[in-house]
Amino acid sequence: MPPGDVPDIVVGRLPIYLRALTHMAAAGQEITSSHELGQKLGISSAQIRKDLSHFGEFGKQGTGYRISHLMDQIKRILKVEREWEVALIGVGDLGHAVARYGGFKNRGFHISFLFDNDPAKIGSPIGELAILDSAQLQDVLVERAIKVAMIAVPASEAQKVADVCIEAGVKAILNYAPISLTVPDGVHVQHLDPVAYLQRMTYYL
Amino acid sequence: MPPGDVPDIVVGRLPIYLRALTHMAAAGQEITSSHELGQKLGISSAQIRKDLSHFGEFGKQGTGYRISHLMDQIKRILKVEREWEVALIGVGDLGHAVARYGGFKNRGFHISFLFDNDPAKIGSPIGELAILDSAQLQDVLVERAIKVAMIAVPASEAQKVADVCIEAGVKAILNYAPISLTVPDGVHVQHLDPVAYLQRMTYYL
Repeated sequence: MPPGDVPDIVVGRLPIYLRALTHMAAAGQEITSSHELGQKLGISSAQIRKDLSHFGEFGKQGTGYRISHLMDQIKRILKVEREWEVALIGVGDLGHAVARYGGFKNRGFHISFLFDNDPAKIGSPIGELAILDSAQLQDVLVERAIKVAMIAVPASEAQKVADVCIEAGVKAILNYAPISLTVPDGVHVQHLDPVAYLQRMTYYL
Repeated sequence: MPPGDVPDIVVGRLPIYLRALTHMAAAGQEITSSHELGQKLGISSAQIRKDLSHFGEFGKQGTGYRISHLMDQIKRILKVEREWEVALIGVGDLGHAVARYGGFKNRGFHISFLFDNDPAKIGSPIGELAILDSAQLQDVLVERAIKVAMIAVPASEAQKVADVCIEAGVKAILNYAPISLTVPDGVHVQHLDPVAYLQRMTYYL
């Protein structure tokens, strides 16, 4: 089935399923059911079965899902059975924490390049990476054919940085800056704005 | 209209509209249209009008929206015309960055309490706050009637911390730990897992 035929909201739930399955597998569990998965995630088992049915047949009625098989299939669907090189632009407080965040490992992503425009930071190391000058951003992205970028610069700089990334061929941007980025068709952007997530909860309080 | 009658996905777009309107207002703009807002956000103008129509009548055909009025109304709907006291639990790299993040200001939230269980951190200051001992978490949450918490502890600790928060009356949890939390009905949780957002984009690459 071509990507365009699956609703984006369904695609958005696959990483959640994968995360839960990974935790089950790490705990030694081998089999699960849409019922168990649904209870863990607060999603109905019917919804989970319907979501997965967009992509094929992954379990048998009554026997449940083999976790390792379902994980492999979801990784393949999400194209994270490989590892994507990621550029992180902006190494302030938040970017620094993102650069040191252990949660990317074994989940399809590897931060390969750090950029900042602060002369005091350029050249200094975080883990095994040295911070590069943002002036080199476009050249490095093109040369290494980087498709995924994370932006953690101030809001006032974020659109400019995104434009450079897109010009250099980046197709997926995870934006930590509290501003909505404008991107052309064919480029994907997700916003990690904690306040937006808090606000959608206070609505219900 | 009671909260239950508006689809959650519509509620989830209101903070995005509010963020965009805030940027327009900060730039001195007074009037906008569903068309302009839609172009900035990559959402159709019809969708925006339909979303807002769940809550009332905010603009006139042909004259657009008065930005300050629409902002006030969305803030009221999202209950962020007031400021919520927030407890942040876990002051590692990421929690530290969250504690120092400037983006909460004037958007309805104020981090009032920091907690960690590391004796080396307890008592030390971040900005104007001293880090409190996690052993006090439940007492402080109850005493101050805190309804909103952010969890930035390791994945292995996150459910336990969430359970304490919920027991103490917290109703909204923003979870930075890369694990899906299980919460009872009436408690809301949002997960800020950067990898999940990256994975839903690589699907399309």
